[in-house]
Amino acid sequence: MGGVYVVGVGLTKVGKHVNDSFRDLAVEALLAAIEDAGGEKPDAIVVGNMLSSLVEQENLAALIADHAGLRGISGFKAEGACGSGGAAFLAGYSLIASGLFRRVVVVGIEKLHERPTPDTARGLAYAADADYELIYGVSFAGLNALVMRYYMNKHGVSRDEMSAWAVMMHDNAYENPYAQLRKKITLEIANNSPVIADPIRLYDSCPLSDGAAALYLVPEDLKWVNDTPVEVVGIGNALDSPDLSSRFELDRFIAARLSAERAFKMAGVSVKDIDVAEIHDAYSIVAAISIEEIGFAERGKAPKMWAEGRFRPGDKPVLNPSGGLKARGHPVGATGVYQIGEVVMQLRGDFPGVKVGGEVGLAQNVGGIGSNVTTIVLRR
Amino acid sequence: MGGVYVVGVGLTKVGKHVNDSFRDLAVEALLAAIEDAGGEKPDAIVVGNMLSSLVEQENLAALIADHAGLRGISGFKAEGACGSGGAAFLAGYSLIASGLFRRVVVVGIEKLHERPTPDTARGLAYAADADYELIYGVSFAGLNALVMRYYMNKHGVSRDEMSAWAVMMHDNAYENPYAQLRKKITLEIANNSPVIADPIRLYDSCPLSDGAAALYLVPEDLKWVNDTPVEVVGIGNALDSPDLSSRFELDRFIAARLSAERAFKMAGVSVKDIDVAEIHDAYSIVAAISIEEIGFAERGKAPKMWAEGRFRPGDKPVLNPSGGLKARGHPVGATGVYQIGEVVMQLRGDFPGVKVGGEVGLAQNVGGIGSNVTTIVLRR
Repeated sequence: MGGVYVVGVGLTKVGKHVNDSFRDLAVEALLAAIEDAGGEKPDAIVVGNMLSSLVEQENLAALIADHAGLRGISGFKAEGACGSGGAAFLAGYSLIASGLFRRVVVVGIEKLHERPTPDTARGLAYAADADYELIYGVSFAGLNALVMRYYMNKHGVSRDEMSAWAVMMHDNAYENPYAQLRKKITLEIANNSPVIADPIRLYDSCPLSDGAAALYLVPEDLKWVNDTPVEVVGIGNALDSPDLSSRFELDRFIAARLSAERAFKMAGVSVKDIDVAEIHDAYSIVAAISIEEIGFAERGKAPKMWAEGRFRPGDKPVLNPSGGLKARGHPVGATGVYQIGEVVMQLRGDFPGVKVGGEVGLAQNVGGIGSNVTTIVLRR
Repeated sequence: MGGVYVVGVGLTKVGKHVNDSFRDLAVEALLAAIEDAGGEKPDAIVVGNMLSSLVEQENLAALIADHAGLRGISGFKAEGACGSGGAAFLAGYSLIASGLFRRVVVVGIEKLHERPTPDTARGLAYAADADYELIYGVSFAGLNALVMRYYMNKHGVSRDEMSAWAVMMHDNAYENPYAQLRKKITLEIANNSPVIADPIRLYDSCPLSDGAAALYLVPEDLKWVNDTPVEVVGIGNALDSPDLSSRFELDRFIAARLSAERAFKMAGVSVKDIDVAEIHDAYSIVAAISIEEIGFAERGKAPKMWAEGRFRPGDKPVLNPSGGLKARGHPVGATGVYQIGEVVMQLRGDFPGVKVGGEVGLAQNVGGIGSNVTTIVLRR
C-alpha cells in the first residue's frame, strides 16, 4: 500500500446559498480542488452527502460529474450520517491506495436550506434510530441534550465552562472567510441564548448550513502536481449503535476512541504529536467528548481546559482554528471534507483565517451521536 | 494490488417481507455470508442502499453492524441509485485491495414495501434528475418508456420479441428458491399485460421488491477460508448524465459500455470468454441495451437474439439464470449484490436454481437510466 496525498483543496463559503443549486455548489468546490491540483481531470469522484433525499435527488456522483463536464469517470456517494464526509474520504483513500484509480476527488455537499426547517430537523434525525428513537418524536438535538445533561451532572461542569467553547469558536471563525457565523460573542450572550433542548442552548449548537468542499487525492508518484502535497498518514473509522438507549456509557463515544486509535497506530504518531486538529463540535457536548476520546483531555476535563484558555492559537494542539461546526458551520455531508481541507491548508500554511502551522494535523468527523466516526492524521 | 476474492455469499428470498424489519433482513444476509466464509467476524462492512430515506433511516452501516453484534468495526453506505449494490462492491473491493482491511462484507439491502406504492415510485425517481425531470411529474417507468419506444421504432423490434425476455426470465426464476416471481408465463400473457407507461407493460417491468444480499471479501492470503474462492478479476464503473434530455443517443448506455470495457481490460478477458452473466433488466429495454453495450449482441439485435432462443441454459453466455430483475426481483440497493452473489455461486457450482457452471462470469449493475454502472468479472 503506497502513500496517498492531498494535492488539491476546494472550499465554498458556508452559509445559506439561495442562488446556487445543489449541483452548482458541489461543482464549485470540485472545480476549485481540480484547479488547486494542477487542472488534470480526475478518474473518479466520491460524494459525501447525507440528506439529498430531502430534495428528492440521489445518484449524486452521476449528477455532479455530469454538471462538471466529467461524464465517463467513475464514482458513487458515501454516507455515514453527519460523518458522511469522513466516510467519503475513507472510500476515496481506498480507491487510490488500491491502485484502481490515480486521481480521485472527494466532494462533500449538503444544502440544508432547500426545505423548511422542521423538515430538515426531521431529516437530521435519520442519523439516529428510526425504529427505537425517531418514532417517539425525539429530535437529534433532544438526544444530544440527554448526553449533555448527564455529562454536566456527572463531571460537575458549569454553564460558563460549556459556553466558553462557543466563544472560542466564534473568535476563530471571525478570521475565516469561509465561515458562516463571523461575529464575536461573549459568555453572557451564549449563557442567555434561547434553549433549544435543555440544557442545549442556541450557542451550544451548530447552525443549519449549506456548503460544499472537495479534496483531490493522488498516489505518491503524482504528488508533484502540487508544490505542497500533504500526506494522509493515518485513517481510522469505527461504528457504534445509532441508538443511545443501548449504549453502556452515555458520556463516551467508543467509536471516536477506536477510530482515533486506529488512525494514530497507522500513522505511527501519538496524540502529543498533533499540532492542529479540526474536531466535530456539532454541539458543545460533542466537542467535549470527542476531545476526551481522541486523548487531548482526560474524561470530564475538556470543558475546564478550554475554559482556562487551552486549545487556542499558540497552544498545542490548536483545536478548530476554522471556527468549527459551531461557527464555520455544519453542512452535514460536507463537514468532514471541510475539516480535512482546513487541516491540509494549515499544514501547507495557506489557510486564509487563523494560522497555526505545524507538521502533523488531525481531523475527526462524527456521524450520529458517535456512531460512525472517521479520524484522519495528516503530515506536511 | 493483490487479488480480491469472494469467499462468502448470503442471499435472502426476494419478495414482500412484512415480518422482518429493515435491519433484520440485512443482518440475515450478513450473517449468512459470514457463515459461508467460515464464521470469522469482518473488519468492515459497506452497505449498498438507495432508499432507506423513505423510512427515515440513514447511518445504515452503524445500524446494521450494531444489530449484528459487530459494534466497533468500520463501514459506511455506498449509493449509486439502482446501481448502489455495484457501487458498494467497488468500495468493498477497494477497502481490501488498499490493504486497509482484511475481511469486508458488502451488504445490499432494500425494502420497497415499507411505504405506500406511490411514495416508493416517487422515491425510485430520485435516480433521475430532480430539477430537470422529476419536477415535471415524469416517473422512472415513464423515462424508460421513452427509451423503449425510440429503440423499438429505430431498430424495428416487435412486441413479441420484447416479450420473449420476460418469458425466459420467468422460466429461469421458476427454478430459483430466492426468486420473487416463481411462475412460468407465455408470450400471450406478457403481450396482454397492463400498460404501465406505454410501451412498457407489466411484464416488461421488474416487480417492487424487498431483499438483502451479502458478499464476504478477502485478500489472496485468506482465500483458503472457503474451499471454492472466486476471484474478482475485473471491475469497472462509469457515470453518465442522470437526465435523458442531455444524452446524445437515446438507445445507448455509454456508461454501461465504458464500465464493461474497463472490467474486461483489467481482467484480461473478452466478451467471448464469459460463460454466465447477470445483467440489469429492470425493464426489458434495459436488458436489450445492456446486452448490446457489454458486447453480447450488436446494436439493435439483442431482442431478436433472445426471441430466437439465445442466452438460455446451454448457450454461451447464459444470461440471468437467476431470473433477473424481472423475476428474481429488484430490491434496488441489493440487486447488484444479488447479481454478483449469483454469479459466484454459478462458478462454484452451488447455485440452487438453473445451473450453468463455467469458469468466467460477469455481473453488470445499472443505476439510473445507465448513469452509474458497475461491471464485475469473476473467475473460478
